[in-house]
Amino acid sequence: MSDATSNLPEFIFGHLSTTQGRLKQARMARVGLFHDSILTPLIPHENEPIQIVVRVGADIAIKAMTLYYITDDSGLNQPFDIDHPDVVSLTMQRFEIEWDTLQWCYLEKWLALIPGQLKGTHVQYAIVATTTADRTIYCPYVDLDALQQLGDAEDFDLKSLETSDRNHQPQIYGFVVDRQPIPEWLRNAVIYQIFVDRFAPDEGTDFNKPVDRSGIYGGTLKGIISKLDYLNDLGVNCLWLTPIFPSPSHHGYDPIDYSAIEPRLGTLEDWQLLVAEAHQRDIRIILDYVVNHVSSEHAAFQSAIGDRHHPTVEWFRFRNYPLEYDCFFDVPGQPEINSDLPEVRDYFIDNACHWLRQGCDGFRLDYAYGVSHAFWSQFRAATRQVKSDSVTFGEITQPPSVVRSFAGRMDGCLDFKLLELLRGFFVFDKLTVSQFDKALSQHFGYFGSSLVLPSFLDNHDMNRFLWAVDGDKRRLKLAALCQFTLPNPPITYYGTEVGLSQLEAVGRLEESRLPMIWGDEQDLDLLTFYQQLIRFRSQNPHAWQQHQTLIIDDTNRVYGYVCADYAIALNNNDHAIKLSLPSLQHCQLAIATDATTIWNASTAQLSLPPFAGAICYLVK
Amino acid sequence: MSDATSNLPEFIFGHLSTTQGRLKQARMARVGLFHDSILTPLIPHENEPIQIVVRVGADIAIKAMTLYYITDDSGLNQPFDIDHPDVVSLTMQRFEIEWDTLQWCYLEKWLALIPGQLKGTHVQYAIVATTTADRTIYCPYVDLDALQQLGDAEDFDLKSLETSDRNHQPQIYGFVVDRQPIPEWLRNAVIYQIFVDRFAPDEGTDFNKPVDRSGIYGGTLKGIISKLDYLNDLGVNCLWLTPIFPSPSHHGYDPIDYSAIEPRLGTLEDWQLLVAEAHQRDIRIILDYVVNHVSSEHAAFQSAIGDRHHPTVEWFRFRNYPLEYDCFFDVPGQPEINSDLPEVRDYFIDNACHWLRQGCDGFRLDYAYGVSHAFWSQFRAATRQVKSDSVTFGEITQPPSVVRSFAGRMDGCLDFKLLELLRGFFVFDKLTVSQFDKALSQHFGYFGSSLVLPSFLDNHDMNRFLWAVDGDKRRLKLAALCQFTLPNPPITYYGTEVGLSQLEAVGRLEESRLPMIWGDEQDLDLLTFYQQLIRFRSQNPHAWQQHQTLIIDDTNRVYGYVCADYAIALNNNDHAIKLSLPSLQHCQLAIATDATTIWNASTAQLSLPPFAGAICYLVK
Repeated sequence: MSDATSNLPEFIFGHLSTTQGRLKQARMARVGLFHDSILTPLIPHENEPIQIVVRVGADIAIKAMTLYYITDDSGLNQPFDIDHPDVVSLTMQRFEIEWDTLQWCYLEKWLALIPGQLKGTHVQYAIVATTTADRTIYCPYVDLDALQQLGDAEDFDLKSLETSDRNHQPQIYGFVVDRQPIPEWLRNAVIYQIFVDRFAPDEGTDFNKPVDRSGIYGGTLKGIISKLDYLNDLGVNCLWLTPIFPSPSHHGYDPIDYSAIEPRLGTLEDWQLLVAEAHQRDIRIILDYVVNHVSSEHAAFQSAIGDRHHPTVEWFRFRNYPLEYDCFFDVPGQPEINSDLPEVRDYFIDNACHWLRQGCDGFRLDYAYGVSHAFWSQFRAATRQVKSDSVTFGEITQPPSVVRSFAGRMDGCLDFKLLELLRGFFVFDKLTVSQFDKALSQHFGYFGSSLVLPSFLDNHDMNRFLWAVDGDKRRLKLAALCQFTLPNPPITYYGTEVGLSQLEAVGRLEESRLPMIWGDEQDLDLLTFYQQLIRFRSQNPHAWQQHQTLIIDDTNRVYGYVCADYAIALNNNDHAIKLSLPSLQHCQLAIATDATTIWNASTAQLSLPPFAGAICYLVK
Repeated sequence: MSDATSNLPEFIFGHLSTTQGRLKQARMARVGLFHDSILTPLIPHENEPIQIVVRVGADIAIKAMTLYYITDDSGLNQPFDIDHPDVVSLTMQRFEIEWDTLQWCYLEKWLALIPGQLKGTHVQYAIVATTTADRTIYCPYVDLDALQQLGDAEDFDLKSLETSDRNHQPQIYGFVVDRQPIPEWLRNAVIYQIFVDRFAPDEGTDFNKPVDRSGIYGGTLKGIISKLDYLNDLGVNCLWLTPIFPSPSHHGYDPIDYSAIEPRLGTLEDWQLLVAEAHQRDIRIILDYVVNHVSSEHAAFQSAIGDRHHPTVEWFRFRNYPLEYDCFFDVPGQPEINSDLPEVRDYFIDNACHWLRQGCDGFRLDYAYGVSHAFWSQFRAATRQVKSDSVTFGEITQPPSVVRSFAGRMDGCLDFKLLELLRGFFVFDKLTVSQFDKALSQHFGYFGSSLVLPSFLDNHDMNRFLWAVDGDKRRLKLAALCQFTLPNPPITYYGTEVGLSQLEAVGRLEESRLPMIWGDEQDLDLLTFYQQLIRFRSQNPHAWQQHQTLIIDDTNRVYGYVCADYAIALNNNDHAIKLSLPSLQHCQLAIATDATTIWNASTAQLSLPPFAGAICYLVK
């Protein structure tokens, strides 16, 4: 998209939402030593040599570069140090010089080839360079002086750079040679996101009425159990629960203890019952797992600030002990944690394995970009050993190139880029049909089958779709029809299916986390549509990989495509349209967003009301 | 270089001299259909299939792309039309999708494979795409709407885009499968640039004293002949003459007739004598050749504006006949000419061949970027047939990636990027030694042996080096010492060797074209140095490819390197320095820019005065 089409009035991609931010990132990535954790091949086979590439930006004059690696079949408990006797060193070679007009410099690529490894081998590596002036530089490295010279260094987020400089040691990269197959059930999943405090209180009780929307509304695990039949009727086969661990907040994204359940949400027995009841209905449960940071009330942090010699002091990054430390989005209550430390890594992995043993089916990995590729590689390898069809998918609000670098390290990533496209097309009219169609083709072509990319129209961190379209549920249905006829498992955010919206625009994120509506308040028309759509998707999980464009009408904003035995037509416009589709003569209306949609087989005309769409079954 | 180091107070690269300009170019190249004329392999062998890649930017939704090509062994007289019966069409395939964070879009690459061809085959090709909305688009294509949406379309140079749109036909690309070897003499050349009107009047006469520096000073071919002994003593083995054809201007870069000699410069007999006398001294002569545009007094243009049905109307690009037409840098006296038209192409090639038959040894191609790769491919093939060791090198003030695309189409290009580095390091102190060393390594590594890149410190379009360093000839000598110990033939701009400078800074370009100084006005110290340096270079043409860094001292701005049997040390600083160089114990001072430079073999110390440099011979 050009800027005009991508500069949605939303902030999904943070500082990358503006051209200026993108330019800064592009330039920052060109004044240092970078390795993006991408392996070649992307997901190596057993015994296949692995290319590691480091990019050298302007102003860094490198004369030599070495890759140090260690293999460790025993798994997780081996710390890595380039002086370790088992470490192998490889001399890296400059193998490519590129010209970059924007930064007005040459960029170099340096290469090392790690020999092929046995299946299951955990490889850790680090990269160290020597400048022509004989200075030692550790990868990643950003030249702060060069950034200063760009004239706007103060606007760059230098936190991680300073950290790296402070430590003055190389980052440890890592991967596991295992080519874990992505469980088929994830590809076929129809997911429902439950914000636990806001979904359902215990049966027979009502939600609290807190004075503030950041208060506790009182949703519980038992409440979810009581709604399993509702969810089963809806047709979903997978629930994603926001964090259920003890936490001081209503959202739980700052856990205090990863081995327990927040008491106000329920007990371990409640959890076990929930799992049993859900599984009985063939519904899987995915837990939300936060590794980037913990609550400041977490015992490890409390010990750390209580005794500066306590071992867990090392778990955190104090800038000025004990008051200043790195924390998530600068919130003091959410200290970031060094998840690459073996004991921290084990803590997170052991607890994840515990929940798998307790019946959990996988994890949605919160702010996964803040945690290393090496960690996630080991996290998946370890959790798979406990439950062979468990899954992992990350929340990574970064450009597709970064998302793709996690292929082979997790099974999937939430598809924020598709979210941007869907909202851009169906909410903000920022894309033409041509552009939308092209972007879909490119997007899915770019990722191939390397990652499952669960799709969504909204979530707990942004305006609900229905709010964004001013409550026009025709547009929600239309977008959902598209979402459900694309590749990758669709996620429905709780309440979307019954017309839950907001009272105010999202400023504080709580605005899009209002309590679920039940009973008479529910929009039954919308619910019926969602039931129909979800059932249809569950029964046809595989049709959507083969997306063939059928209609592109930029003027009328009509989009059509064929997937296996189905044709989909979307009228993303406020006037009715009649489509002549002789090629579809032998088809039948399967699902329509609007009851007045008419397929006239004799004239081969599809009549779509404003903002309506339809799925037609192609009779063979 | 970062911006800070590359934003020299000069304008060599035009609009690309600023970050804003580079950003615009980067974005412009991402909203359309582009082919950069680069072949893979860069210079194909006989019978080797040739990959042609087209990049598709944002907002262009392409569903199909076709490459049309025609081979034409008979050479130059075949116009190309995609409907021609001999045309072969190849379906192009999308083979790569890249993510571009800056533009926030995917970019596509489409590929076709032209089958291998016999040696000498001239291949012409064109690329046509179909959008998903069934619109036909010709390559190159820039989406003007998308540019508008970028918000600053009015600042883009849309001239060529409009032209392309006006013609509504594909650009013809082309190449010749011939892998012409680059004549060895060019690699060994030591070139002297003569601005003909300003070099030497007829023997026994003085320069005119025009009231204005854009007037005629009276240099002639006979004048040059009279100075051949001077040039021979200087040691150069190749002269590059600025244009000698009839022209209304003092510089001649707007020829009226490519077959004749400007009468005030001399006659054909003068030319023949010049060639004979020069060749007798083993000095070759290169002519400056302008194909991008002609003088408005050229007969073809006069015919065109005199009769709108005259065949040469097509030679030009009238916007509003006869008053408005495309012209070079918007100067009405320099109408641009359609050099890809077969009759225009033949005109230029025939005249070039004429001058080769008249003894000329090759061409410096003025503003070569304004003329197609296809043209230059044919130009070289045709001129080589007349004179097998004739050479071509282009003036291309574009980024290295563009310069490199001309490999295989000409023998070399003037090295403006190196000019920027040399002036950045030796004039403006904008690069550290580390950065300068690194940039040299990258620059020569990037080009390999694909093109000869004649080096220079200044030319007729910028401030003279000596002026830029405030007349400090130590710094000129130091820079020249470096220039002459790098790969590629060095060019000396007339007068540099005797201290010719300027009276005012370049605003009007004439400031750096003052008449040559002769006799007592010449700086004999400088002249002696240049004679020594040029002789040295002529005797050692091959040593400079193997550049090994020896000293990088960013603090003292001392740079040293070893090339084959020589060590070079440069003190780019205003204080004297003593270098301890035990590794050079057995060496002898070969050339020093300053007489007080001392090499003490017993202590292995080199004493360099401020801004002094030395070449040492390594005794084996």
